[in-house]
Amino acid sequence: MERFSPGEPAAPASFGVGREIYDLAARLFPICRSITGDGVRQTLDVLSSHIDLERHEVPTGTQVLDWVVPGEWSIRSASITGPDGQKIVDFADSNLHVVSYSLPFSGTLPLDALKPHIHTLPEQPGLIPYRTCYYAPTWGFCMAHDRFAQMPDGLYRVEIDAGLTDGSLTYGEYLHRGRSEREFLLSAHICHPSLADDNCSGLALLALLARSLATRKTRYSYRFLFAPGTIGAIAWLSRNEDRLHLVDHGLMVSCVGDAGRPAYKRSRRGDAFIDRAMAHVLGREAGARVMDFSPYGYDERQYCSPGFDLPVGMFQRSVHGEFPEYHTSADNLDFIGPEHLQDSFRILSAVIDIVEEDWTPLNLFPKGEPQLGRRGLYAALGGHKAPGATSMALLWVLNLADGRHSLLSMAERSGLPFGELAAAARLLSGHGLLTAAP
Amino acid sequence: MERFSPGEPAAPASFGVGREIYDLAARLFPICRSITGDGVRQTLDVLSSHIDLERHEVPTGTQVLDWVVPGEWSIRSASITGPDGQKIVDFADSNLHVVSYSLPFSGTLPLDALKPHIHTLPEQPGLIPYRTCYYAPTWGFCMAHDRFAQMPDGLYRVEIDAGLTDGSLTYGEYLHRGRSEREFLLSAHICHPSLADDNCSGLALLALLARSLATRKTRYSYRFLFAPGTIGAIAWLSRNEDRLHLVDHGLMVSCVGDAGRPAYKRSRRGDAFIDRAMAHVLGREAGARVMDFSPYGYDERQYCSPGFDLPVGMFQRSVHGEFPEYHTSADNLDFIGPEHLQDSFRILSAVIDIVEEDWTPLNLFPKGEPQLGRRGLYAALGGHKAPGATSMALLWVLNLADGRHSLLSMAERSGLPFGELAAAARLLSGHGLLTAAP
Amino acid sequence: MERFSPGEPAAPASFGVGREIYDLAARLFPICRSITGDGVRQTLDVLSSHIDLERHEVPTGTQVLDWVVPGEWSIRSASITGPDGQKIVDFADSNLHVVSYSLPFSGTLPLDALKPHIHTLPEQPGLIPYRTCYYAPTWGFCMAHDRFAQMPDGLYRVEIDAGLTDGSLTYGEYLHRGRSEREFLLSAHICHPSLADDNCSGLALLALLARSLATRKTRYSYRFLFAPGTIGAIAWLSRNEDRLHLVDHGLMVSCVGDAGRPAYKRSRRGDAFIDRAMAHVLGREAGARVMDFSPYGYDERQYCSPGFDLPVGMFQRSVHGEFPEYHTSADNLDFIGPEHLQDSFRILSAVIDIVEEDWTPLNLFPKGEPQLGRRGLYAALGGHKAPGATSMALLWVLNLADGRHSLLSMAERSGLPFGELAAAARLLSGHGLLTAAP
Repeated sequence: MERFSPGEPAAPASFGVGREIYDLAARLFPICRSITGDGVRQTLDVLSSHIDLERHEVPTGTQVLDWVVPGEWSIRSASITGPDGQKIVDFADSNLHVVSYSLPFSGTLPLDALKPHIHTLPEQPGLIPYRTCYYAPTWGFCMAHDRFAQMPDGLYRVEIDAGLTDGSLTYGEYLHRGRSEREFLLSAHICHPSLADDNCSGLALLALLARSLATRKTRYSYRFLFAPGTIGAIAWLSRNEDRLHLVDHGLMVSCVGDAGRPAYKRSRRGDAFIDRAMAHVLGREAGARVMDFSPYGYDERQYCSPGFDLPVGMFQRSVHGEFPEYHTSADNLDFIGPEHLQDSFRILSAVIDIVEEDWTPLNLFPKGEPQLGRRGLYAALGGHKAPGATSMALLWVLNLADGRHSLLSMAERSGLPFGELAAAARLLSGHGLLTAAP
Repeated sequence: MERFSPGEPAAPASFGVGREIYDLAARLFPICRSITGDGVRQTLDVLSSHIDLERHEVPTGTQVLDWVVPGEWSIRSASITGPDGQKIVDFADSNLHVVSYSLPFSGTLPLDALKPHIHTLPEQPGLIPYRTCYYAPTWGFCMAHDRFAQMPDGLYRVEIDAGLTDGSLTYGEYLHRGRSEREFLLSAHICHPSLADDNCSGLALLALLARSLATRKTRYSYRFLFAPGTIGAIAWLSRNEDRLHLVDHGLMVSCVGDAGRPAYKRSRRGDAFIDRAMAHVLGREAGARVMDFSPYGYDERQYCSPGFDLPVGMFQRSVHGEFPEYHTSADNLDFIGPEHLQDSFRILSAVIDIVEEDWTPLNLFPKGEPQLGRRGLYAALGGHKAPGATSMALLWVLNLADGRHSLLSMAERSGLPFGELAAAARLLSGHGLLTAAP
Repeated sequence: MERFSPGEPAAPASFGVGREIYDLAARLFPICRSITGDGVRQTLDVLSSHIDLERHEVPTGTQVLDWVVPGEWSIRSASITGPDGQKIVDFADSNLHVVSYSLPFSGTLPLDALKPHIHTLPEQPGLIPYRTCYYAPTWGFCMAHDRFAQMPDGLYRVEIDAGLTDGSLTYGEYLHRGRSEREFLLSAHICHPSLADDNCSGLALLALLARSLATRKTRYSYRFLFAPGTIGAIAWLSRNEDRLHLVDHGLMVSCVGDAGRPAYKRSRRGDAFIDRAMAHVLGREAGARVMDFSPYGYDERQYCSPGFDLPVGMFQRSVHGEFPEYHTSADNLDFIGPEHLQDSFRILSAVIDIVEEDWTPLNLFPKGEPQLGRRGLYAALGGHKAPGATSMALLWVLNLADGRHSLLSMAERSGLPFGELAAAARLLSGHGLLTAAP
């Protein structure tokens, strides 16, 4: 990556982008998504109001790596009506009420026969859980345990008007072309129904990040992928296997709207450029976490499978599975906020800046320090107790510009922010003191 | 080691093995051992009731590396009789009373002339110390300082009926043959007299560990060595120099019956397989210690001398030299217990399991995750908060099965127990998802 | 460095050397030094009373690396006289009162016009700061803020009788020749006026360290450099570029007389022999600090510029820029003390001992331990709880004498002091157990 000149610094993000991301997430929230079906298409439609998405349809039955694209699921209505004729559960109230990929069903059952089909959270009795049965031929409902516990014995009328038919799996892509065809992949899963943080937040954030790049001349190309979890990522990998060598950096993005501190899970490689760049950015954020790779999580599982081993990490705030709202009806629009989305946007933009602006300078005056004062680059009056931060950045860049340190490695060694070193390197280049290392 | 298939998992240790080890240690305790002589032979006789020992005799005067096998020491009786005609010290009471390798002596001395020959522990005045003078032509007694302090002036009658004559140095070996002639060396010093932890405990533990392997088909061969400290290990090394390249793993075992937490001292190499396996096992034991190599201790000093540099570490509980009972009469049968011996047996068995069961799998479906659900290997109903430990082990094994990670390195990286990963790898192999890396 | 035999151990430093260093620093203190001029020459004159210095003059206008030697500055007197005719500031009271390299000036100014030329420390209102303007055509005064704050409006008479004319930059060198032409460079800046710690202490310490070597037969050659900061080091580097490959070790020395604990800043390489030796010595000093390289500080900035990258670290006590007396009139003869100078002398002597005495032994009896008792090298009576420190050093040296460990690396691994290992190696060599590794 050292051989092409760095990209331009980004314009500062407009203050209101957090609000825009929130509003977009709020539009996505009500849609009933699954790994296939119209919910995914409607979601892509909404995202298309911001970016020019390319839509892909992969037919049912297509072999994708070790998997086969399942039938397309559709659902129109579902309910449980109690012995007294009152509706106890109605899909119209919350799309979490139906286990995703439930088979159609219509019948009347005694409570004992119904119970195995109902999922609750006894320890969070007021919340509806989120459940799926993509690859099991069954059906089910999810509901609050409080309500479940009050269901009297008797006969219950169950109606699930759903379909599982030949159709296709849908995903969307947006490519921002840079000077190079080397790519930064940013991926968010699009398959969860009304869960705000997981992952309306990620979808909306990536859409507006993509929009912000549209007018920027970048060094890298940026590929944004909105695909259903697991099977969608596997379909995309399967169809793009010959291009994967172009992926130099990648991030899965999910749960980026809550009040938790930013967190990063390293790629399987552990020391990829993206791992170092994220560690540098989060290293300057109070309370941020950087965690080692593990093969459980989102689609980094697929990107980091041993046959691909792509340099793809995972960015989130509260870590999935660790916060009580995770995969429940409490992951709603109150759980996320514009200020947190803005913060996540800022962090991803900072990482993109590092990817764009990193380069390896070579000091053209490597013997002793060049006389900075004569060039107007150094406070002329000596004897002060400490140099300004800018002077430290100039000295670090000159000292490490031996052709073996990129700006990011200088940031790692010096403890200075990448941005200060990049600014210093621009200044020194402008004065003819640096050139690009061969 | 990657090329041969893993050994079978061990049957769980019977609950009573700790008691059996204790009973065997108790039979060994009264015997007066030294680096040569009938005490060693009697000890091997007792051990032979459990395993089929091969006995070796190395004649006095034999050059072994830089050393010469000393004369064989024998002792029948020894005592000090006071001015009042009463016996103050009698070898019949404790074989610690006589400095090991004391020359025969008979005579009457005034107290002042006797004192330099008496060793006590002023800071532990009730205990008899343990002392030796293998290579110095002298004699001496050890006794409690309390008693020593009360000795009145006067003439003392000293009798030591000992012999130092041409004979031989004795050691025993037991070899459990596995499929490979590559060896795991387990060694315990046999030269200490009535010290229970140091090292009746190690001798008894190794004997019963050897017995437990007798009916197990193993990958490795296991060599158990019961030899006198220093000169015995040196004699064995000298006589087996041409076979040392077969030693892939090794452990010195001593002080394994006390209530201290398990401790391991790394081999000189520091990162040998045995070092990693012991660190993994002890890493899951509360209060356990893993220490760097140092050239002081037991016969790891010889095994790890620079001309051999064998991968031999040291397993113990309370660290020799750090506990007050060490090398005193307080290291008796009350100081050790069946539960601690059982615990030590369990730990060594766990390490043997790693040595036996480690292998390097190769994922045959390395691109994306293989669909585990279809194969019945994964909970079919998704959306749950966290996968069971077994699912995590399956995912880790698949993810790291790139031919560069053995199961032990997977355990190190994942933080999961070796056993869970080994079980997952067996399951995945059984489903045709893994093969052995070439 | 392994191929020639180690140097002799040093004689212990005389107890009074701290007092001698202090007295020499006190003689240097009053002289008004700058980066050029008679102050530097007078300082070299004083140092010449202890060592036979070689003096170098580099003419004004000489190109040295990226820099040009400036005109030579001289100052005879300078003062500010207030509206009431009283002298407010007089160079005769303190040579810190005049900004170093002030241009000559004579005139009468209103207070408002004078103020920009006056430097004070509002947060340390009783102290005079130290300031320079080497490369800016201006003039200025430094004074206590308390006094400055009381200056009434009115006209002030300013007189600076200074000169900036063609002349030369002066530096001094002393070379102690060892058996090898490989060098240890010890460098102190000579350009600061009356600042006791920074750097009368360093100049005096190096002079007496040089004197202490004069009668010692050393392996290395030792070059002591007394040169003005930055431009002096750059001039020396420029004129010695073809000999820099001979510098195996180096230290900048400054601020070595105060009560702070010893501190070392690593060379740019970070793992040079000098970095390891200093870390070993300071690792045994309570409260000592070892810091990573940074390109701000003294002339290690020049020595460690990427085109040279010499193995030169920085030794000091209180770290420059971190203590309140730094670059103020409080850095006076009360701020330094003989006991601290003695301590710094001891530490540098210990590092020189490591440089002199390190070698890589080879155990001639590498299989098993050689029998030390037979050679009188080991306590003959066994069974004791712990060996003496000397025994541990013998065992460590024998164990690590595989030709891949020098004594310093043995010290690093064992945790024993270098001196103990060096003594053990001498003893073992004397008994024919070691030879020098090829």
